Amino acid sequence: MTDLLITNARPMGGAKTDILIKNGRIAEMGENLTADGMAVEDAGGRIAIPGLVDAHTHLDKSLLGYPWYVNTVGPRLIDKIDNERAVKREYGLDAHVQSMRQSLQSVGYGTTLIRTHVDIDTDQGLIALEGVMETRRQLAGVVEIEIVAFPQSGLMRRPGTAELLDKAMQMGADLVGGLDPCGMDRDPKGHLDTIFAIAEKHGKGIDIHLHEGGELGAFSMEMIFERIRAMGMQGKVAVSHAFCLGLPDWNVSQALIDTCAELDIPIFTTAPPSREVPSLKRLHAAGVRFGAGVDGFRDTWGPYGNGDMLERAMLLGMKNNLRRDDELAMALDVCTTGGALAMDRSAHALEVGGRGDVVLVEGESVGEAIVTHQPRKLVVTAGNIVARDGASLRARP
Amino acid sequence: MTDLLITNARPMGGAKTDILIKNGRIAEMGENLTADGMAVEDAGGRIAIPGLVDAHTHLDKSLLGYPWYVNTVGPRLIDKIDNERAVKREYGLDAHVQSMRQSLQSVGYGTTLIRTHVDIDTDQGLIALEGVMETRRQLAGVVEIEIVAFPQSGLMRRPGTAELLDKAMQMGADLVGGLDPCGMDRDPKGHLDTIFAIAEKHGKGIDIHLHEGGELGAFSMEMIFERIRAMGMQGKVAVSHAFCLGLPDWNVSQALIDTCAELDIPIFTTAPPSREVPSLKRLHAAGVRFGAGVDGFRDTWGPYGNGDMLERAMLLGMKNNLRRDDELAMALDVCTTGGALAMDRSAHALEVGGRGDVVLVEGESVGEAIVTHQPRKLVVTAGNIVARDGASLRARP
Ligand SMILES: [Zn+2]
Ligand SMILES: [Zn+2]
Repeated sequence: MTDLLITNARPMGGAKTDILIKNGRIAEMGENLTADGMAVEDAGGRIAIPGLVDAHTHLDKSLLGYPWYVNTVGPRLIDKIDNERAVKREYGLDAHVQSMRQSLQSVGYGTTLIRTHVDIDTDQGLIALEGVMETRRQLAGVVEIEIVAFPQSGLMRRPGTAELLDKAMQMGADLVGGLDPCGMDRDPKGHLDTIFAIAEKHGKGIDIHLHEGGELGAFSMEMIFERIRAMGMQGKVAVSHAFCLGLPDWNVSQALIDTCAELDIPIFTTAPPSREVPSLKRLHAAGVRFGAGVDGFRDTWGPYGNGDMLERAMLLGMKNNLRRDDELAMALDVCTTGGALAMDRSAHALEVGGRGDVVLVEGESVGEAIVTHQPRKLVVTAGNIVARDGASLRARP
Repeated sequence: MTDLLITNARPMGGAKTDILIKNGRIAEMGENLTADGMAVEDAGGRIAIPGLVDAHTHLDKSLLGYPWYVNTVGPRLIDKIDNERAVKREYGLDAHVQSMRQSLQSVGYGTTLIRTHVDIDTDQGLIALEGVMETRRQLAGVVEIEIVAFPQSGLMRRPGTAELLDKAMQMGADLVGGLDPCGMDRDPKGHLDTIFAIAEKHGKGIDIHLHEGGELGAFSMEMIFERIRAMGMQGKVAVSHAFCLGLPDWNVSQALIDTCAELDIPIFTTAPPSREVPSLKRLHAAGVRFGAGVDGFRDTWGPYGNGDMLERAMLLGMKNNLRRDDELAMALDVCTTGGALAMDRSAHALEVGGRGDVVLVEGESVGEAIVTHQPRKLVVTAGNIVARDGASLRARP
């Protein structure tokens, strides 16, 4: 069933209307719509928003379903990376089970589109990828999952990883990942040349984790710019985190932001309160495509988070000091339509012709819905009801 | 009734024990305690934490109980201040009713001690103070409320305000407030001399809102230091926000922090994701007393927040990039025992002799309790049960 009539909904907090979904797309919006024999859901005046878009997460990392992980990890990045591989072995973590758990939790929160980075390394090879791909198959029609082959443990510093990334792309990963070409791999030229070559070979895009701050991050961004220009990959290369775009030196950060706009580099943020981040309003003003994600949560990296992209819209608003209702609407856009656009999905809005992904949320206004992020009443993916009252209809393993 | 036996509780997530409260104080902790004829509550293995301490809020500002406030306010501080006075008049906002609503919501979240700043200005005079004082009377034994007489609309720029502050102290306010001596009042000497004189006259302490960032904030801090030294007010003057302590220039911020330790200046934070803030670990290492608060919420200033200090511990952890369980425990301490200490309450811990304020929270560990901040099972103030299952027993007006 991909046909559904939702009555008495308030799209984006506006006036009540009915929403008719046919063949997975929004076919009509208006008053007193009827549909013979079609399933009908009364929204009861609740706000309707598009499906939430989690544009940056790690479905293979969460420890959901396990006892609380007591974190005693050291302070360095490499401590966390090495600890994670050790815990995976110790727990015998199954990427398929864990990605099912996280994906279905996210579906309960109204997420209908996910971009996940999946660890590819010489310890575990392609097992995590296989697990997440199986989850993607099983959840087709429930939540769309896009996979980035991610060299979490390093690329140049761990020989054999490049070959595994190449294999991952053959197997069906959607994008090539990367990670801190300077800070992690100590060889920015080697790292970037390698991932750009793999992406070009497979005709796919790239999404690079760039935590490097300040001038170091700016340097890595410039090296990314150079390769996009040289290889004509405008619009094909995204950068996640991109803390360096929040550099306080306005001239430096504005030049980076302007080049992101020129080369059509989508930016994905998780809005961490502890870091300098790309400013929502500055990216918006420059016309840079911008999405948000929950990142990993309840994993060996850190305790925070739950998969809720409506709560993430709140954190994005708090991080950007957004207080006005029109500003809160911008934060929600980043977590829905804008995030989808940054993932090259152009039809992810509540309008005729848009994908039939609809979430019914509680609140008088979009602002209240974001701030209180109460359990979602109903989640619809391409016309299919996939969650009710905060929980996915499909049980978690 | 101020006697209560709580059985099967796990203080701070440790081993199960019983907690016996007599005459409002913790009299005994251990296994298999009995108490003839005394009320007994079975904690069912839940974690017990001390009463949460909201050390910085504004009970007279919230619009709880009103429809969602659509915020269209301008970007400047003065826009927000002028708008607030206008909305108060338009709504006929009753500070007693609003402070009852917020206080009881906070009690539902487990807060047993609040420091609130109350607006004193030449528009409304002392009406807000009277309202909050009435709330304090009505909620005696439920939640302790400490009042700062707060010149929100300015002191030197609004003649007559100093006299009102003086009157407020006569009426029973506990501390003299202040606000951005440079940025708001444009007369740091006049502002600080005035509030220090009022405090000295009444033998009371001071708690100054200092949003001024960078070098400007450092300058105002120095002027505060000078007056504490000159008047011998060590331990009597607190600074709220103190964003300048987060100045990236390590030498400058460390000198400020060291002086806060030397002059025993408690610092109160709301851990805003959008600003530089005092670092929890740096203040801890320097031995500075440190508390946290929810600040105003659901008011004309901004939409975020709900009064939950356990959620605030999470935000404090996220802001300070705390990931380890021992670090999360530090964040909870700031929101309980440490915050109380910063308010000069030395007996606010789960130990024999401590105040009988106990909150039962859900989670395997303190870390999970903070991160998931689920509804509180039970809230006890000085041996009295004041809330169950997330709601105060006393209904909100
Ligand atoms: Zn990531
Ligand atoms: Zn305040």
